[in-house]
Amino acid sequence: MSKQPSATVQLACELIGRPSVTPDDGGCQPLMMERLARLGFNVEPMRFGEVDNFWARRGEEGPVFCFAGHTDVVPPGPLERWDTDPFAPTVRDGILYGRGACDMKGALAAMITATEGFLAVHPEHAGSIAFLITSDEEGPSIDGTRKVVEALEARGEKIDYALVGEPSSKERLGDIVKHGRRGSVTGKLRIQGKQGHVAYPQLADNPIHRAAPALAALAAEQWDEGNEHFPPTSLQLSNVDAGTGADNVIPDALTAVFNLRFSTEQTPEAIQQRVHAILDAHGLDYELDWHLSGLPFLTPTGELLDAGRDAIAAVTGLRTQPTTTGGTSDGRFIAPTGAQVLEVGPVNATIHKINECVAVKELDQLAAIYAEMLRRLLT
Amino acid sequence: MSKQPSATVQLACELIGRPSVTPDDGGCQPLMMERLARLGFNVEPMRFGEVDNFWARRGEEGPVFCFAGHTDVVPPGPLERWDTDPFAPTVRDGILYGRGACDMKGALAAMITATEGFLAVHPEHAGSIAFLITSDEEGPSIDGTRKVVEALEARGEKIDYALVGEPSSKERLGDIVKHGRRGSVTGKLRIQGKQGHVAYPQLADNPIHRAAPALAALAAEQWDEGNEHFPPTSLQLSNVDAGTGADNVIPDALTAVFNLRFSTEQTPEAIQQRVHAILDAHGLDYELDWHLSGLPFLTPTGELLDAGRDAIAAVTGLRTQPTTTGGTSDGRFIAPTGAQVLEVGPVNATIHKINECVAVKELDQLAAIYAEMLRRLLT
Repeated sequence: MSKQPSATVQLACELIGRPSVTPDDGGCQPLMMERLARLGFNVEPMRFGEVDNFWARRGEEGPVFCFAGHTDVVPPGPLERWDTDPFAPTVRDGILYGRGACDMKGALAAMITATEGFLAVHPEHAGSIAFLITSDEEGPSIDGTRKVVEALEARGEKIDYALVGEPSSKERLGDIVKHGRRGSVTGKLRIQGKQGHVAYPQLADNPIHRAAPALAALAAEQWDEGNEHFPPTSLQLSNVDAGTGADNVIPDALTAVFNLRFSTEQTPEAIQQRVHAILDAHGLDYELDWHLSGLPFLTPTGELLDAGRDAIAAVTGLRTQPTTTGGTSDGRFIAPTGAQVLEVGPVNATIHKINECVAVKELDQLAAIYAEMLRRLLT
Repeated sequence: MSKQPSATVQLACELIGRPSVTPDDGGCQPLMMERLARLGFNVEPMRFGEVDNFWARRGEEGPVFCFAGHTDVVPPGPLERWDTDPFAPTVRDGILYGRGACDMKGALAAMITATEGFLAVHPEHAGSIAFLITSDEEGPSIDGTRKVVEALEARGEKIDYALVGEPSSKERLGDIVKHGRRGSVTGKLRIQGKQGHVAYPQLADNPIHRAAPALAALAAEQWDEGNEHFPPTSLQLSNVDAGTGADNVIPDALTAVFNLRFSTEQTPEAIQQRVHAILDAHGLDYELDWHLSGLPFLTPTGELLDAGRDAIAAVTGLRTQPTTTGGTSDGRFIAPTGAQVLEVGPVNATIHKINECVAVKELDQLAAIYAEMLRRLLT
């Protein structure tokens, strides 16, 4: 006889069972909103474009503690490679399997049950509890958290503490939290040459030959050494393409795409200047388009980080380590408002993979950590 | 009133009017064979695979003077960009327009009319006159000249002098002849990395970053300084490709294609060794497949070169310059048999282009040069 799953696991299963590949919410948000409305939250759907979002708040006062997260998931990939249907959540040997189990429907469920548990004991809490939930975190992230934050700012509504449920842990729940993220900027480069026949290189201008030393220099550049909170800035070339397909034709141009994850030691302007200096030093005829995905952000200290650290220690016994490594998150949209931002979520080993999963015990502990943070910040 | 076009121009027009994009002969060879049979040639069609070729010979004795050429042409490209139909030959202001006018139906016509003119005066010439004509020079060149040469070798039939009608001239007919060609070898390279997320480069191995310095080194390498007859060996990267299309994914591998045109200072083995040494020095995990298209060949001196030089001087007043630059030609298949090989043809400015053309006067002079060469070598 298996024992009854916890409220957190039950809710996680309900959410996983509602397929919600970006930007489709799949009915997850209505389920969450219903639970929150029952708790006395003022619930406000905010649809932008084809993206469902909602804002929910309980309380009129500050400080505002906001759970931030997303209901959308990445596509499951080849279904035949899953041991069980990615949208039919299954618990085997204490592990919950399903797309979104870890990223991040498990954490969404923990946010709700933590709030329910907290309110059962502290119905007259200080400040406000809020939820900022989007269905476009895995996609372009244009009509999601960014737009909700804009709407809140427009009416002067402020978040003090943002707890993002992204899977931040590495090997054990709470071993690592993210108290900041690097910035991300992408460059699309086109190096112009002149097409010709390989037998007459003097009549052509080979863009691959021109590009190779410049790309090598970009890849070898040491941008900075990072700092106390950030690893060194890193550039990665992700795409490069040149050629007509014919072996004997020197192509007209080469295109390349690169992305930098950058620390607070850099600004996008400083990076762009250095990239241009490297390209210019190689005498290239080029065009370069930039796209800034997000500035770096950091909550170096503060009540939120303290509460997270203490709650993790109380629930798991671990002394957590705040880091800023890894990809970016929707925290980048909230941090510029002045909010403290912290990401606390499950072990990220299986996110975006086949047979994504999370330990049942981890989810229950996560709910306990969230509830303990509410207690420390709002009572 | 325009005067009557010469026999050479008339025949060139007849050939151009028979569309023959590789490997289609379009009925050009039957026309040539009929003209040669009428002159007493023993004509032998040699079809290999889907490629029409023929061998024709007049005379039993040596030396064998062989006109070598091809009836196939490259595709015309966008028809609307031609001033007149590429397969409806047109003479305007002394210029003959049409696909193949220059490469090389004009030269084929000159070979025939030169032979007709020579035989009218020297029906009892010394040695033999031969024609080796293919319809696959612009294509894979597998079932064309190569196969005909193999068939001749198998029965012990030998060519002493091969006169290839490729458009060898640069600015004026006869300013340059080709008395050899560089070798050509192609490498297809795959550099293995390890896929990953750009935010976690330490978990991946970026093949673009690994490849860039190695490709730069290949492009910068000085292979040799050439020699009296050959320009320096040249490597050109023609294709490079890596990336999933996503900006944030480090790709699994990079592929590149490069081609070397090499002088008699090199062997394919020496080139391959040096390329491997460069790649190995960069610590790459790679695969490299080689394709040898042709070895370099050279007719440094001899009766054929002398006859070509003298005939050009007699007809045009130019002192011709023998070179080995440019692409390869079917001469590469004939030279290894021990034949002297020389390429004499029209100005190559418009070959493979829109509005390909040749000056009428050039064609008439070319026929005169060919006839004069026959006179010098076979009387």
